[in-house]
Amino acid sequence: MLRTHTCGELRMAHVGQTVTISGWVQGLRDKGSLLWIDLRDRYGISQITIETENSPKELVDIARTLGREYVISVTGNVAERYSKNNKIPTGDIEIYPDKITVLNSSVIPPFTIEDETDGGDDIRMKYRYLDLRRNPVRKNLELRHRMAIETRNYLDKLNFLEVETPVLIKSTPEGARDFVVPSRMNQGEFYALPQSPQTFKQLLMVGGFDRYYQIVKCFRDEDLRADRQPEFTQIDCEMAFVEQEDILNTFEGLVRHLFKIVKGIDIPPLTRMTYADAMKYYGNDKPDIRFDMKFVELKNTSQNSPLRVYPEHLSKESGVRGEAFPIFDKAELVIGICAKGAADYTRKQLDELTEFVKRPQIGASGLVYARYNSDGTIKSSVDKFYNEADLKKWATAFNAQPGDLILILAGEKHKTRKALSELRLEMGTRLELRDKNTYACHWVIDFPLLEWNDETQRWHAMHHPFTSPKPEDIELLDITPGTVRANAYDMVINGVEVGGGSIRIFNKQLQARMFELLGFTKEQAQAQFGFLMNAFEFGAPPHGGIAFGFDRLCSLFGGADVIRDFIAFPKNNSGRDVMIDSPSVISQEQLDELGIVLKK
Amino acid sequence: MLRTHTCGELRMAHVGQTVTISGWVQGLRDKGSLLWIDLRDRYGISQITIETENSPKELVDIARTLGREYVISVTGNVAERYSKNNKIPTGDIEIYPDKITVLNSSVIPPFTIEDETDGGDDIRMKYRYLDLRRNPVRKNLELRHRMAIETRNYLDKLNFLEVETPVLIKSTPEGARDFVVPSRMNQGEFYALPQSPQTFKQLLMVGGFDRYYQIVKCFRDEDLRADRQPEFTQIDCEMAFVEQEDILNTFEGLVRHLFKIVKGIDIPPLTRMTYADAMKYYGNDKPDIRFDMKFVELKNTSQNSPLRVYPEHLSKESGVRGEAFPIFDKAELVIGICAKGAADYTRKQLDELTEFVKRPQIGASGLVYARYNSDGTIKSSVDKFYNEADLKKWATAFNAQPGDLILILAGEKHKTRKALSELRLEMGTRLELRDKNTYACHWVIDFPLLEWNDETQRWHAMHHPFTSPKPEDIELLDITPGTVRANAYDMVINGVEVGGGSIRIFNKQLQARMFELLGFTKEQAQAQFGFLMNAFEFGAPPHGGIAFGFDRLCSLFGGADVIRDFIAFPKNNSGRDVMIDSPSVISQEQLDELGIVLKK
Repeated sequence: MLRTHTCGELRMAHVGQTVTISGWVQGLRDKGSLLWIDLRDRYGISQITIETENSPKELVDIARTLGREYVISVTGNVAERYSKNNKIPTGDIEIYPDKITVLNSSVIPPFTIEDETDGGDDIRMKYRYLDLRRNPVRKNLELRHRMAIETRNYLDKLNFLEVETPVLIKSTPEGARDFVVPSRMNQGEFYALPQSPQTFKQLLMVGGFDRYYQIVKCFRDEDLRADRQPEFTQIDCEMAFVEQEDILNTFEGLVRHLFKIVKGIDIPPLTRMTYADAMKYYGNDKPDIRFDMKFVELKNTSQNSPLRVYPEHLSKESGVRGEAFPIFDKAELVIGICAKGAADYTRKQLDELTEFVKRPQIGASGLVYARYNSDGTIKSSVDKFYNEADLKKWATAFNAQPGDLILILAGEKHKTRKALSELRLEMGTRLELRDKNTYACHWVIDFPLLEWNDETQRWHAMHHPFTSPKPEDIELLDITPGTVRANAYDMVINGVEVGGGSIRIFNKQLQARMFELLGFTKEQAQAQFGFLMNAFEFGAPPHGGIAFGFDRLCSLFGGADVIRDFIAFPKNNSGRDVMIDSPSVISQEQLDELGIVLKK
Repeated sequence: MLRTHTCGELRMAHVGQTVTISGWVQGLRDKGSLLWIDLRDRYGISQITIETENSPKELVDIARTLGREYVISVTGNVAERYSKNNKIPTGDIEIYPDKITVLNSSVIPPFTIEDETDGGDDIRMKYRYLDLRRNPVRKNLELRHRMAIETRNYLDKLNFLEVETPVLIKSTPEGARDFVVPSRMNQGEFYALPQSPQTFKQLLMVGGFDRYYQIVKCFRDEDLRADRQPEFTQIDCEMAFVEQEDILNTFEGLVRHLFKIVKGIDIPPLTRMTYADAMKYYGNDKPDIRFDMKFVELKNTSQNSPLRVYPEHLSKESGVRGEAFPIFDKAELVIGICAKGAADYTRKQLDELTEFVKRPQIGASGLVYARYNSDGTIKSSVDKFYNEADLKKWATAFNAQPGDLILILAGEKHKTRKALSELRLEMGTRLELRDKNTYACHWVIDFPLLEWNDETQRWHAMHHPFTSPKPEDIELLDITPGTVRANAYDMVINGVEVGGGSIRIFNKQLQARMFELLGFTKEQAQAQFGFLMNAFEFGAPPHGGIAFGFDRLCSLFGGADVIRDFIAFPKNNSGRDVMIDSPSVISQEQLDELGIVLKK
């Protein structure tokens, strides 16, 4: 037996026992007469103490040959420590060894196996197996395991069945690019790896499996932006005989369960916000509502807003007079936020904010600010265009108090909202309103069904082509498709979309109409989705579902920004696994068997 | 709300309540004044009863338009039934509807949705979503779900972590053929889909994750024999700081837990059998020990047996005299089984058995039998070569009693053992000793490390190249590699290998020696497994693991032979999904992006 206990479990209660523990040498201190070894495994660190003069020479000799990351097994007596270490759970005891066995030696690792390591990203990726020995990385994967187990337990209790759907499926041109797998037995043909099990879970509903879930790998061959992975994991779910309300309740229950069990946090029932409101008040379909700082419109001349509900803060009462300030005069939208308690921002800080919004990624042409000083005066960067009365109207519109800072952008409506959304998040960060250990979870609902794509000159499905329009909006499909709302919803936590889904179309005619709107010919629709449309002939039940990005959800629960840290063996931004050096060339024999030739 | 209850949960306690249930029309009987609808969902069937003369005309009209598999929602009152049906759990009640809503119609399904269907395999595969509505198919997948949940709960309690390993990995020439995935971002290079997460789980051990598991899809591009799938699922496990004994105990615990929780069966601790004994007594490395019927050797002239332990039943005492019966005289091995109570087999039955062993797949040249009649006489098919005294010796060797039938094969040792193994299984089946609801589980241990491949003229790893030889056999590696036993083990249930694994090599030098024995040059070993051998430089712990074929395990628990029935969306024997029609051609644009050309 290589161990009777782990390196993390020995306590005062074990004093006097003979134990065997195994692990890696974390460190060794040799003071001549005393020699200490810190032995580490997944569960903790135990101290081995050797009184060199009272110990057999062989034992001391072995101990003195040990290096960092050597693997050893130690049998000895547990004793109470002279000077206890209250920083670690095993700090009350130490082990006096009778026997040390070197199970394996180690060359010197390329970085230190410590919570704070000296290794950079690249070297840690190459030696991922060593990085995994570090507590923070292991803890991330322990969290991920716990999240998965608790997700399954919650859904199992609600009669959900986990059903494995195939990985070798069929390529579809809709959506992102597929990874494909050449078939050897059917030469010239290919499987595709699933971007999601969407059609299979809908077929399971047709098959009567009314509550399905799966924690499942999905694949997208996209040009990788930072922190995207070609393979990623979803919690994929579907329910039949439900309406949107049932799904929202079921899965808000899941996330509250996870917060409760995994983090010990009671989060309140999730609030709901329409897509229209999210865009209006936050310029963003996944607003971070850990802090308020809602948008306030001072002027809005846009007539053909895509939003169905639109505010009535018009320029007349807003202090934005025509022919005063040319930038505002010609702007479609003048809109701002009120940063509470930031009136004392220095000129330098304000310049930084101006630089921030003028960065090419954000693209505003400038920033107008107004300080509501604690003495009740208001000073703005546009004092020569607006008088005190105008500025007071601004303060009223923003519900600003003395001590607050008003920040205003102007321009074309979409671009300006987007820029202000970035500025709002930046101010949230600067004012420390975005604590990683505070969680604000909510639903965004009533997404538009379609979005126009200028490049392809056709409508695209905003969620996916199986998403159901709201029944009351169906008649608009033929008149103003862009105004049709979908029974679609996203769950947002701290400004991150962690999950999204929709009620599906289960009527064959409506599905055919959707494909038509999306520019599919009947033949194309039949070729791509014929099996689903055929299935709908045989009594498809009403159904809908949701999918959570599991990597992202774990990183949020772990209080981290980077999903890569929550994946055991991630790929880099070129889709490469630098540890195993993949992808790689394959043999000519393999290519021949598959009937494919590489293009020069 | 589309339902307040399922179709399976209504009981006497619900009588008097107004409920809404939804589901599929299983059947409709119209007796004029009374009309019954059987409404089905995943949970059961409820009866809807309409008294046509006391019901609104619209309701009756709607009911009369319904066809099989229509999806409807019914709101009505639960009442006690006049004539109860004790065959179904809801048989005490019926529902008098106030409202019937047709949620979706259905065309007539191509086969009946009944426990016993009229649909053949091919049509049920094409319309798998309809087949899934049938109770037996759904129950199989419910069993699979339960098996997965209970596997996870058992392992989680033992501190195992489920870690997802990558699906896009690197192609290796060892083992079966890989599926490959062309990389668009790294043109000319390919990912491979994993045949198992073997190297990754070993890297996790190097990374200190001492207890890993994963229920994971694996892939093999093999020519599919019956009941093999190109994608299949494993329960993949690995442990560090363990010896073989620890692994056997842990995973026999898993299987006993599954039997207990999922089937309600207490199975005894697993017995263990060496590979040598399995071959000697059953001619098979996965013997079905639901019944005894061990092999008995009457003659064995083989000197260079690969088995280390070999029996001493020699021909002298066995009644097989030289120069009596030419077939036996020239045979390397004369070996048989005793079928208890089968002495009254008719000539026709014995002829069938002879035909059975002479089939090309089995390949014996003939079958010798000896009936030990209940009157104490022995009659054999070789009476003209052997006298009563000889035959009595046979009876003694086989420990036969009056009423038993002795069946004997003779010939070359490997082929004869293999044929007798098939005959033994056939006799087990005929004598009804292989009840699907009886489970005999055991370990087969001490497998040979290597097997010689005549075709490639080199040693192949019997398990895989990372399997550790038994320490006491290591010195034989350089002398008689074929006799080296491995720390490798299989779990066998009812003659099916459900899982197998080994203690791994964790020493870099020994691993290099293995690669050398397997015919890898240093460069090839470095190119293929360099990352693993490098990892072993940094303190690899002793480790080992096991993988269970999850599809097979589920089918065994379900008392079925065919794994396809336990997979939601299986592929056929040509690797095709006939439902979605995959694999399929992809667009020229996709091929161009990947930089590959199809060979004409």
